[in-house]
Amino acid sequence: MIKGKYIAFGEIMLRLKPPQQERFFQSPLLEATFGGGEANVAVGLARLGLDVSYVSVIPDNPIGEACIRELNKQGVNTTSVLRKGDRLGVYFLENGSNQRPSVVVYDRAHSAIAEASSEDINWNEVFEEASWFHISGITPAISLSAAELSLKAVKTAKEKSVKVSCDLNYRKKLWKYGKTAPEIMSEIVKYTDISIGNEEDCQKSLGVKVDIDVESGKLQADKYKELTNQIVDRVGGGDAFAAGLIYGLNRLSDDRDALEFAVAASSLAHTIPGDLPLISLDEVKKLAAGSGSGRVQR
Amino acid sequence: MIKGKYIAFGEIMLRLKPPQQERFFQSPLLEATFGGGEANVAVGLARLGLDVSYVSVIPDNPIGEACIRELNKQGVNTTSVLRKGDRLGVYFLENGSNQRPSVVVYDRAHSAIAEASSEDINWNEVFEEASWFHISGITPAISLSAAELSLKAVKTAKEKSVKVSCDLNYRKKLWKYGKTAPEIMSEIVKYTDISIGNEEDCQKSLGVKVDIDVESGKLQADKYKELTNQIVDRVGGGDAFAAGLIYGLNRLSDDRDALEFAVAASSLAHTIPGDLPLISLDEVKKLAAGSGSGRVQR
Amino acid sequence: MIKGKYIAFGEIMLRLKPPQQERFFQSPLLEATFGGGEANVAVGLARLGLDVSYVSVIPDNPIGEACIRELNKQGVNTTSVLRKGDRLGVYFLENGSNQRPSVVVYDRAHSAIAEASSEDINWNEVFEEASWFHISGITPAISLSAAELSLKAVKTAKEKSVKVSCDLNYRKKLWKYGKTAPEIMSEIVKYTDISIGNEEDCQKSLGVKVDIDVESGKLQADKYKELTNQIVDRVGGGDAFAAGLIYGLNRLSDDRDALEFAVAASSLAHTIPGDLPLISLDEVKKLAAGSGSGRVQR
Amino acid sequence: MIKGKYIAFGEIMLRLKPPQQERFFQSPLLEATFGGGEANVAVGLARLGLDVSYVSVIPDNPIGEACIRELNKQGVNTTSVLRKGDRLGVYFLENGSNQRPSVVVYDRAHSAIAEASSEDINWNEVFEEASWFHISGITPAISLSAAELSLKAVKTAKEKSVKVSCDLNYRKKLWKYGKTAPEIMSEIVKYTDISIGNEEDCQKSLGVKVDIDVESGKLQADKYKELTNQIVDRVGGGDAFAAGLIYGLNRLSDDRDALEFAVAASSLAHTIPGDLPLISLDEVKKLAAGSGSGRVQR
Amino acid sequence: MIKGKYIAFGEIMLRLKPPQQERFFQSPLLEATFGGGEANVAVGLARLGLDVSYVSVIPDNPIGEACIRELNKQGVNTTSVLRKGDRLGVYFLENGSNQRPSVVVYDRAHSAIAEASSEDINWNEVFEEASWFHISGITPAISLSAAELSLKAVKTAKEKSVKVSCDLNYRKKLWKYGKTAPEIMSEIVKYTDISIGNEEDCQKSLGVKVDIDVESGKLQADKYKELTNQIVDRVGGGDAFAAGLIYGLNRLSDDRDALEFAVAASSLAHTIPGDLPLISLDEVKKLAAGSGSGRVQR
Amino acid sequence: MIKGKYIAFGEIMLRLKPPQQERFFQSPLLEATFGGGEANVAVGLARLGLDVSYVSVIPDNPIGEACIRELNKQGVNTTSVLRKGDRLGVYFLENGSNQRPSVVVYDRAHSAIAEASSEDINWNEVFEEASWFHISGITPAISLSAAELSLKAVKTAKEKSVKVSCDLNYRKKLWKYGKTAPEIMSEIVKYTDISIGNEEDCQKSLGVKVDIDVESGKLQADKYKELTNQIVDRVGGGDAFAAGLIYGLNRLSDDRDALEFAVAASSLAHTIPGDLPLISLDEVKKLAAGSGSGRVQR
Repeated sequence: MIKGKYIAFGEIMLRLKPPQQERFFQSPLLEATFGGGEANVAVGLARLGLDVSYVSVIPDNPIGEACIRELNKQGVNTTSVLRKGDRLGVYFLENGSNQRPSVVVYDRAHSAIAEASSEDINWNEVFEEASWFHISGITPAISLSAAELSLKAVKTAKEKSVKVSCDLNYRKKLWKYGKTAPEIMSEIVKYTDISIGNEEDCQKSLGVKVDIDVESGKLQADKYKELTNQIVDRVGGGDAFAAGLIYGLNRLSDDRDALEFAVAASSLAHTIPGDLPLISLDEVKKLAAGSGSGRVQR
Repeated sequence: MIKGKYIAFGEIMLRLKPPQQERFFQSPLLEATFGGGEANVAVGLARLGLDVSYVSVIPDNPIGEACIRELNKQGVNTTSVLRKGDRLGVYFLENGSNQRPSVVVYDRAHSAIAEASSEDINWNEVFEEASWFHISGITPAISLSAAELSLKAVKTAKEKSVKVSCDLNYRKKLWKYGKTAPEIMSEIVKYTDISIGNEEDCQKSLGVKVDIDVESGKLQADKYKELTNQIVDRVGGGDAFAAGLIYGLNRLSDDRDALEFAVAASSLAHTIPGDLPLISLDEVKKLAAGSGSGRVQR
Repeated sequence: MIKGKYIAFGEIMLRLKPPQQERFFQSPLLEATFGGGEANVAVGLARLGLDVSYVSVIPDNPIGEACIRELNKQGVNTTSVLRKGDRLGVYFLENGSNQRPSVVVYDRAHSAIAEASSEDINWNEVFEEASWFHISGITPAISLSAAELSLKAVKTAKEKSVKVSCDLNYRKKLWKYGKTAPEIMSEIVKYTDISIGNEEDCQKSLGVKVDIDVESGKLQADKYKELTNQIVDRVGGGDAFAAGLIYGLNRLSDDRDALEFAVAASSLAHTIPGDLPLISLDEVKKLAAGSGSGRVQR
Repeated sequence: MIKGKYIAFGEIMLRLKPPQQERFFQSPLLEATFGGGEANVAVGLARLGLDVSYVSVIPDNPIGEACIRELNKQGVNTTSVLRKGDRLGVYFLENGSNQRPSVVVYDRAHSAIAEASSEDINWNEVFEEASWFHISGITPAISLSAAELSLKAVKTAKEKSVKVSCDLNYRKKLWKYGKTAPEIMSEIVKYTDISIGNEEDCQKSLGVKVDIDVESGKLQADKYKELTNQIVDRVGGGDAFAAGLIYGLNRLSDDRDALEFAVAASSLAHTIPGDLPLISLDEVKKLAAGSGSGRVQR
Repeated sequence: MIKGKYIAFGEIMLRLKPPQQERFFQSPLLEATFGGGEANVAVGLARLGLDVSYVSVIPDNPIGEACIRELNKQGVNTTSVLRKGDRLGVYFLENGSNQRPSVVVYDRAHSAIAEASSEDINWNEVFEEASWFHISGITPAISLSAAELSLKAVKTAKEKSVKVSCDLNYRKKLWKYGKTAPEIMSEIVKYTDISIGNEEDCQKSLGVKVDIDVESGKLQADKYKELTNQIVDRVGGGDAFAAGLIYGLNRLSDDRDALEFAVAASSLAHTIPGDLPLISLDEVKKLAAGSGSGRVQR
Repeated sequence: MIKGKYIAFGEIMLRLKPPQQERFFQSPLLEATFGGGEANVAVGLARLGLDVSYVSVIPDNPIGEACIRELNKQGVNTTSVLRKGDRLGVYFLENGSNQRPSVVVYDRAHSAIAEASSEDINWNEVFEEASWFHISGITPAISLSAAELSLKAVKTAKEKSVKVSCDLNYRKKLWKYGKTAPEIMSEIVKYTDISIGNEEDCQKSLGVKVDIDVESGKLQADKYKELTNQIVDRVGGGDAFAAGLIYGLNRLSDDRDALEFAVAASSLAHTIPGDLPLISLDEVKKLAAGSGSGRVQR
């Protein structure tokens, strides 16, 4: 079991979603929450009881302040957040249903983190007392300086013997600043201990074809088979998986248990509105242990 | 491909529905939107990119004004709407769930369109530059003058070589003014190029038994099989089908494609709250082409 | 067919639930309704058309007043309610979804009914003109005096030839005042004509193992098989079953019909938000008779 | 002090209002409550603790049922309500603010009560054990049969020595069926013990010019002077006044106290959303006694 | 009276505001509407019955589409809107109350209109059949190209004998691209027939000190004196004034009437939630004519 | 200027309030927030930028967890909170308007803090590095052990040279456990450096009559005179005053400035929904410096 602080680095955005299954602006109301791949992982880890710091660049205005308060509310330390820049990235989400897919409209260009300089974060300071660092393939896709910040981060982590996990998370709508994903990501994964991704992520992010031995990855899938019925929120499930996996690799007895735990965390996250995995350790443990009946607990 | 304006004629009502799955007046709130069979078709056609005019009779008060603004918002031309009469028809809808059926309570008697005179609309003017006219079996069921208006409409359309589609839409709670459905509808369908209806509609509206060759109508039904899971709004699906069919017959290469397109439009409409099919051409095309995975698009 | 008033006795609580599938305090809003096992049965019976009185102890403050007004709204006579005590019991409910179970947090200690004296209710007066009395295993689990009140109630009912039904409803979080469930419940069921419970209820409440002849209890289960799709509210389904059974035993021709009717009532209750079974006689009859298509009724 | 039941007769409508200060359909939501001049008086009297029956004609559909449940919730006896007719009258209300007046759009033609026959109510039965009857100038303005029903009512009341109060309530948008207000109202007031109205009501309803000796009607107006700041709901204030006056004339020591009590009831009603005066005896008494500080009571 | 189309040009933004008097993110909800100085004027003119086109640059995504549909709903022609660019500008608004001022947080940098080229709009085409053009000091403050577009617009208008009005609207948070307000605005006002502004606007926009002869501008201010009580929405009042003034100058008999009309329009706009002046000609006329009692109209 | 941590001690409750000006249960919704006299002060101090710890007893259930997360969100350190006990106290609040007073219904008996033992908190540990301690007259009114805890707290503070402030806050509905307010409070104020209270508080809490030299306390009251117009939330204004005063006494140059600052903080708090004073240092400073115009800041 590794001791010490867990660090995650990336963007966090304002998420704006119409109520329930409504289409954009069907009502003049938007549900306004915060989220983003790495921030979701940070919140997941904090709610599972780990000591987590989030590193990001967030503007010094009321929107940025509300975002930081939300992270604090979820137990995430924000003292390493840099208050700088003009705007928090925004993304609009329309919840799909059946044949109608969910729609994401990004409005994240020129965000505080995209425009931060690669000198803005002192990684040596950030990694003091740290044992684990989580990053994803989203941040390096935003801008050249964000890619440089990411690369510096993993290199410094390596030097300081901090373990590094990376969720490849290929986003085709990003990567517009002149570099391709494989150019940057193949460099980043050199410093990574654990990479997470599906087949497409691996191919698009790294430019390599991965042969997955499906047999060896078999899970007790039966207890999740009803999952497709009523997905409350499709966004953030992969991030909850990453949080569960990091927790499991550090706190559980073996990799198989870690994987079961990760799947349970992800499964719960699909039932919770919003990006953030508002889970508890007890809930994930119970579900991983097989209690998924859905009956009223009283 | 037929060029020119598309015309639809009928009532449009205020729809009042409790939030979500609530029963009537469980909360002191009603979702207030507008809809009605033919108006739904008009909105569907406008959102698919066609040039559509809606013909109706709508009172000159704030409720009527809001109704017209909604049609304009959806891209429907309302210059042929007659502002006259005392009230907009109202219908109350309670959303069912599982074994509990949806309930409709009509409060549409004495509506502006039901009390309009058969002289109130100048069909020759309406059909200038028109290529297609859509009507349904609902309007002739409202009142004698509405039936006369409908009959005049289809006759004038025929004279002016405007194609006519009719959704039979049998409503047993209407037809109270002294005529039976077959008396009127069998006359109307004489002037109709395309009639839409299920077996019951045909029998009740026209008084004839139809033998449907089920084999010839087979669709790629597999991609819709999950549809029964989570129907967001059961009302208006048939109207979206009609809109899709009219679009398809006019803009796609063959009848089979038109039918696929109609089914896709209807399928999407079931996932959208409200009567109006708030769809786009791109979405229907994608679904008809087989992309119904429901994954987040980003 | 038994004539006369139906009486139910027990607690009624304020139920506080976050909107939709949200977790506790995800939004700063709680849906505030009233409910409780026996009160749910009383409301079910009233809505089915029977003459029902609810007996309870409810504080004389605005919260208690709102609770009584709700019972009156549902057609339940509240003239036998004692206005006394400091607080109405509260329970917090978080609606589960898929693998995530619903969560109940009780805040019902020291409620008006738990602290009422066993002399506070004059059962002879209550049972005047009564023909049926319903109680459950929840009330005797709250406090010693509530257990004594329950016991007095069933004894007096027996003396006055009032039929008694008891829903065993074992609640492991209660029974904290020094008595075990079997100590009290085995005494209460002596005076009971009809007991309702599943295997676990029987064993935990009465301390006996019941062999259920599953074959003899077979129902036309097919028409309920879709029920697991979209349960709107999991709480109160058993109470609707009890209400349906009591109605059926008193008003229908045989036990089998009563059982079908009870299952239909329970099935409908699962589709309705809130504890209270906001059903109608007509709806239950239609469903029991096989009309569960879920199509729009218009 | 007069003993016995209080009876009120009139329409009750569905009131549909956009949220807060919004204009019609600015959001797709309407607050849906019930109200109407005489029903508001009935609810006021019931909440002040009197034994009140409301007489009306209400359709036998889910909207009518909800309306009756609301009256029961407020403590009004509805056993004399006739379930008949096609629709409940509707009125749309837009809440004004400052220079922008509130707007009412009536959709009440052809309501159940407007179309009831003058034979439909057995007034002799209604007035059994009654001591007071309240009516207003709204009902006779709806339709000829409603005017006949009203006239029959006051005549029968007189014969049975039931005291009659009438709120003149002139409504210029009604009175469309061929009679003028003075033709009917001058007949009705012959049987009335107490009439309520402002100068305009008297002139328009009765066709006579009233000289009001303003001096003799002076009230302790000082404590109400802040009233114009924040009127929460402008509708129903006059009805609360009438309820307060009827209560005061029957239960308080002199007419001056009754008038003070009426003004206090009206003043409270202006602070409560909705038509119905959701007041309590204790509150009105305290305000009439001079406690209008508005401080938090804890 | 000038005939022909009215044209307004400028940005339109997504406005995001917490419910009622809440602070940012106190609830996870934002009211999402559209607005902006010149767009508000366009909507005001359209609702007063004039033929209005809005010229703007709006991105081709679902947010932009919803914005255009809203303009259509309000009767504004949008055929001259250019669909281009990456994002719609956003502004966050927190509604003040008493001593707490309203707060605006702009997130409008890099908006579609700010990044449009000065060649993107063909002003000759836009001004065909136009008689009036409205612009404000906000657009030229956004970016150099927007300033160039504005200048081209007023020059072309002048050439084509289109009257030009300009609301100076000085915004100190803008003007960041290298030019000062007086540098640009003093050029623009050369082509302007009517300029609107308060003392500060004149000084900051034009760099000149204006001596206002307060006496000559006296209005019948008495009927507006209650305005400060309950301002529903403080944003957009000046724009409604401009719309009223433009209407008045073109349709009323003299300047004094135009000014009274403008003040009435502005006064009404303060009572309506949202930026857009959802007024009607009839309402403004009535208020300008002295009917501001605020009584219920029925 | 005193350095070090600020400590506040007391209860924190779940506050349940109907929407806007609605009466209890007029809608089936309650706004659910957290608050309580001393917690409000702690939040105020934290938002003004001080290092604040809250000491309380909060149950280890989801309601308690949400409460703690809210304190963390507002920047209050909760590591000294004891997780123990059965329930969080609840209070129901109905927002008054004009002549209708706000109503508070307490449901706080048997709360975690009321039932904590006087040994449960180690005050020596709590006061490490502390410089200021805030308490109120509410906690000692709850129960004997809470009074003992309070007394121990102030004694230990005195021993450790921590300054003590006490808001007398007399609550007549509490003080039910056998002691009178003066018996306990006269002991507590012996250890207090600053006491806050109005005339009534002093007399009821301490049993002494205070002569207040009104002249010496004169403030620039003019800029607050509009305050009575639109109080958004009447609860918590006194707590914001206390927070402002503590801040001012520690960080501003003299007592007069501290008092002005306190009044400004209180004035802002009246404009913010909820108990918690969601203010910022900048806002209070600006208002204290005379900027209360209420204009839009942009």
